[in-house]
Amino acid sequence: MQLGMVGLGRMGGNIVRRLLRAGHACAAFDRDPAAREALAAEGAQAVPDLPAMVAALAPPRALWIMLPAGAATEEAIETLAPLLSPGDVLIDGGNSFWKDAVRRGAALRARGLHFLDIGTSGGVWGLARGYSLMIGGEDAVVRRLDPILAALAPGRDAAPPTPGRPRGEGSDPRPEQGYVHAGPNGAGHFTKMVHNGIEYGMMQAFAEGLDILKHADSPELPEEHRLSLNLPDITEAWRRGSVVASWLLDLTAQALAGDPELEGFSGHVSDSGEGRWTVQAAVETAVSAPVLSAALYARFASRDERRFAGRVLSAQRKGFGGHLEQKP
Amino acid sequence: MQLGMVGLGRMGGNIVRRLLRAGHACAAFDRDPAAREALAAEGAQAVPDLPAMVAALAPPRALWIMLPAGAATEEAIETLAPLLSPGDVLIDGGNSFWKDAVRRGAALRARGLHFLDIGTSGGVWGLARGYSLMIGGEDAVVRRLDPILAALAPGRDAAPPTPGRPRGEGSDPRPEQGYVHAGPNGAGHFTKMVHNGIEYGMMQAFAEGLDILKHADSPELPEEHRLSLNLPDITEAWRRGSVVASWLLDLTAQALAGDPELEGFSGHVSDSGEGRWTVQAAVETAVSAPVLSAALYARFASRDERRFAGRVLSAQRKGFGGHLEQKP
Amino acid sequence: MQLGMVGLGRMGGNIVRRLLRAGHACAAFDRDPAAREALAAEGAQAVPDLPAMVAALAPPRALWIMLPAGAATEEAIETLAPLLSPGDVLIDGGNSFWKDAVRRGAALRARGLHFLDIGTSGGVWGLARGYSLMIGGEDAVVRRLDPILAALAPGRDAAPPTPGRPRGEGSDPRPEQGYVHAGPNGAGHFTKMVHNGIEYGMMQAFAEGLDILKHADSPELPEEHRLSLNLPDITEAWRRGSVVASWLLDLTAQALAGDPELEGFSGHVSDSGEGRWTVQAAVETAVSAPVLSAALYARFASRDERRFAGRVLSAQRKGFGGHLEQKP
Amino acid sequence: MQLGMVGLGRMGGNIVRRLLRAGHACAAFDRDPAAREALAAEGAQAVPDLPAMVAALAPPRALWIMLPAGAATEEAIETLAPLLSPGDVLIDGGNSFWKDAVRRGAALRARGLHFLDIGTSGGVWGLARGYSLMIGGEDAVVRRLDPILAALAPGRDAAPPTPGRPRGEGSDPRPEQGYVHAGPNGAGHFTKMVHNGIEYGMMQAFAEGLDILKHADSPELPEEHRLSLNLPDITEAWRRGSVVASWLLDLTAQALAGDPELEGFSGHVSDSGEGRWTVQAAVETAVSAPVLSAALYARFASRDERRFAGRVLSAQRKGFGGHLEQKP
Repeated sequence: MQLGMVGLGRMGGNIVRRLLRAGHACAAFDRDPAAREALAAEGAQAVPDLPAMVAALAPPRALWIMLPAGAATEEAIETLAPLLSPGDVLIDGGNSFWKDAVRRGAALRARGLHFLDIGTSGGVWGLARGYSLMIGGEDAVVRRLDPILAALAPGRDAAPPTPGRPRGEGSDPRPEQGYVHAGPNGAGHFTKMVHNGIEYGMMQAFAEGLDILKHADSPELPEEHRLSLNLPDITEAWRRGSVVASWLLDLTAQALAGDPELEGFSGHVSDSGEGRWTVQAAVETAVSAPVLSAALYARFASRDERRFAGRVLSAQRKGFGGHLEQKP
Repeated sequence: MQLGMVGLGRMGGNIVRRLLRAGHACAAFDRDPAAREALAAEGAQAVPDLPAMVAALAPPRALWIMLPAGAATEEAIETLAPLLSPGDVLIDGGNSFWKDAVRRGAALRARGLHFLDIGTSGGVWGLARGYSLMIGGEDAVVRRLDPILAALAPGRDAAPPTPGRPRGEGSDPRPEQGYVHAGPNGAGHFTKMVHNGIEYGMMQAFAEGLDILKHADSPELPEEHRLSLNLPDITEAWRRGSVVASWLLDLTAQALAGDPELEGFSGHVSDSGEGRWTVQAAVETAVSAPVLSAALYARFASRDERRFAGRVLSAQRKGFGGHLEQKP
Repeated sequence: MQLGMVGLGRMGGNIVRRLLRAGHACAAFDRDPAAREALAAEGAQAVPDLPAMVAALAPPRALWIMLPAGAATEEAIETLAPLLSPGDVLIDGGNSFWKDAVRRGAALRARGLHFLDIGTSGGVWGLARGYSLMIGGEDAVVRRLDPILAALAPGRDAAPPTPGRPRGEGSDPRPEQGYVHAGPNGAGHFTKMVHNGIEYGMMQAFAEGLDILKHADSPELPEEHRLSLNLPDITEAWRRGSVVASWLLDLTAQALAGDPELEGFSGHVSDSGEGRWTVQAAVETAVSAPVLSAALYARFASRDERRFAGRVLSAQRKGFGGHLEQKP
Repeated sequence: MQLGMVGLGRMGGNIVRRLLRAGHACAAFDRDPAAREALAAEGAQAVPDLPAMVAALAPPRALWIMLPAGAATEEAIETLAPLLSPGDVLIDGGNSFWKDAVRRGAALRARGLHFLDIGTSGGVWGLARGYSLMIGGEDAVVRRLDPILAALAPGRDAAPPTPGRPRGEGSDPRPEQGYVHAGPNGAGHFTKMVHNGIEYGMMQAFAEGLDILKHADSPELPEEHRLSLNLPDITEAWRRGSVVASWLLDLTAQALAGDPELEGFSGHVSDSGEGRWTVQAAVETAVSAPVLSAALYARFASRDERRFAGRVLSAQRKGFGGHLEQKP
């Protein structure tokens, strides 16, 4: 099958590679000529601009946009839409806001075009392991693109079968291969958003737990209770047979194996839109989500150099108790 | 009435002063001769050591220990107990752990002595405004010391009457004067501990709210939504008629009036035992206390220079996504 | 001065009453004839519909809309705008979303009209105590309406002066009277929103603290540590001299005085838009707000009858440990 | 090697079975004769009481206690200690408090005995998959029992090797087999405690995320944004290639496959000591642990039928705003 890819960064480039390896044909565009030439060398058809991309694809076309969420993605959709023909499909595989997918789907349908929002997990590992795909859009369109989607997904063997899960006629075989048609437009990015929200919570659970292990030698403990613990060994052991076994634990053990104190990192942690949108979705639907929120706030706090909230506390403490927590 | 005070710091010294002004007689001891001489000049009987303190008081004695919780308080009790006579009362007015009060009360009762744990709120303002007292101990002993306790409390006029609160025969008049016999030993410090836990939560609520006001000009907002807000004026206005009116708000408005950016403070905030013990009490009794805990954790995080938890997050992010949050 | 009030519920009605008592003239409209007749009996000019309201006011007019946020307020503004003349002022005193105030201000300015967003705190007590007003809009317009605003505010005597706060020439006298011009459109409702966010946090701090006091007799504690505490007396005592003294504490003590077990309440707690918007503002501006969020989530959880999250936990526990937490 | 097992519940029984299958000899005791007979039928030597257990083992003996933490474990240790000979080893494999392990280790060493605290993860799956073991105690003792420990652990093949982890001379080979000598007494149970704390956080992250997915069809959302999502399919897809892939996700997908609404569960969730102790350890060492705490509190709240905190909120709301949230 033929796919056009717009945006050849870490994600877009590897998606093209995985498709090429599976025997699909890809046209590839990026503002950066070096990026498109690199993929041309691996078998993609490099195109110099979006009109050339549209020209390079046979209708009904499928174009995958893999750009930063927000302005870049919006602009690409607005540029492409007038160039396309009825029946063509635009895919947003980036980390876009799910309500944008609802809006874009409706706007493109009004022009006779189709839209898929595909949440794509897998990071730098997707090329080798496959991508977990969470898809929103019309059923017929999703089915039409199945060869592409199946090639990107990790495949059934990537995990042992789930006992009790129905198989065969009447059951959807795609989730077992690592991709899911979650619902209409918006459902793909909503599902990916929540996936990332859970990811934030799991990461923070590990971060707090390891921080407690690290502080087991705290001078705040009586001497007979102080423990000096080996985090690389402990996380390695947990990878087998424990309840917290997970890919995130594998990555944590790997990082600690090479840098037991994690001295290569500053402790300032970025956050992306999806962690924030997950909290907003919880708030909008009245779902209590303290863990997902706390995980987001820990990242905010890690970057808060102004410390205004702490200053307010110190000012109050000085006010009622004469405590001094002044600038050194 | 006669009281002996052991420990003449900010709290102990002012308690003596307030009692002297109310016509009570006080013997006063502190390791620091200057501290006891200062109070002698104001009418207290300065004593040079604990045996002299005991000698200076007529049985049945009342001795108030106002020392840092932990070793200092424990040592004072252990030194004094053998010097006392049956019927004497030892008072711990510090911020001691409530389970220590249970233990100390039982141990002293076994020697024929009495013990009161009195949680004392009021800080540097207590001398003028009076102290809010939360008292644990035997009923007869609390009643015997009532002249002292009533003199320390803020008094009925410190707040308007609570509509619907029963008065007169059969109702306890003390809470309306600002002191409460909360229960047996432990109840005083338990109540004070929870008071401080609530205080942590209220303080953090203000700190977060003001931080949001402060960030209303954030470049993360679209330009038309950015607001530059005057915190001194806003907090001053809230002092009248708003739902958040409170003494903590008064102190906050005062701090902001003099230093609108709170530049005098570093943002590192200390915590005391009572915030921690409140969380532990919640955990021991299976009470969900997310706000009181979050308030405590914000203080911990404000002092966390090691940032190990943040490093774990960065290491994971690098592992799955190739994100780099390395040391500058 | 003359004001037209649209919406004569608990808030709108009492605002009119407070203005009438201060000698201002009010035209009053409500869909419910009984509501407007009630106010007519107290001196307002009742009008039967919005055109009549406009006709009853002399230009430049001032109209205060006090309706539920959302559709009702939007509709009133849309109906009134075409009836007004250049220079007239529309006021939204309800709990509207602050971004709506930004939008409405710009739209009305484009028609030559003025708009004020006035966050109004004071609840059922505002009539007697005055209203805390947080105002967004153009400076000249706010100054023009000052007689109305000053009459509504609690006034300088409602709180003792803040030490260190500048007075006299060059300083704004309004905050000391309980109202503040917070900034351009949006600033009033933003400030009120954060006020309510803080209120949520303070309320939850009290709720958790009292819950811990209540559970001090928990069978999870060893028998010698169990305490049975008198919450009406404790909260009454805290009202004087303690750090948690506040209007919310006054109300809490009052509720407990009449119903020590709070048996009149179900434990299900509503939330309003402003608690949610505060969390969203924190998330949008990367401010860590764990306490304000936890307070909101506690309300969500109090109404969650489906308990799906808990079911997920039980299902996991059964999966790895054979624990059974099945339906009774 | 020979081991005596005291306590033949789900965990103890399967540990014996796994050892028998690996060719070790086991003496087995349980208060319940049926439990010990069952294991006798599988090759263990059933003994009728603790003295018989001691008699059945050749010195230096190794006895594994697998009983509920607290009184049962304490009593077993106190009964066994006087029956043992110098050099014998007592193992506590249960979920005991880590400070108890420190105390017990010191007390037994004073009698010439040895003590190991072994945190044991694996639940009902340990028999087949092996147990993740976190061990505290003297190095020589841990090495002496290595044949037993290695047989219980999952083994190297249970997970792919961690890239970059040193192997061979100078590196400890045990963590790669799924067991770790974490440090002196206390370190095993401390590490297991934190493991469970992390587990709580991860579980709650999934619970909240799935709850948000579940409420994507909420009537609080505008109609065009409502989504009806298929949780069994989504969680199944996530098992492959996504960042949240984990054993807990496998179990969640399995539960949802059989019961998509999880109707078999009530939503009330128990907690064990280790979740609580993790929070207490964080508080004692000043580590910010909002996620691990929130996870614990969600369980507390799920069982809170009294809803006193919610009642306090409703009472306050009624007090300032006239809101009624009374009993139906």
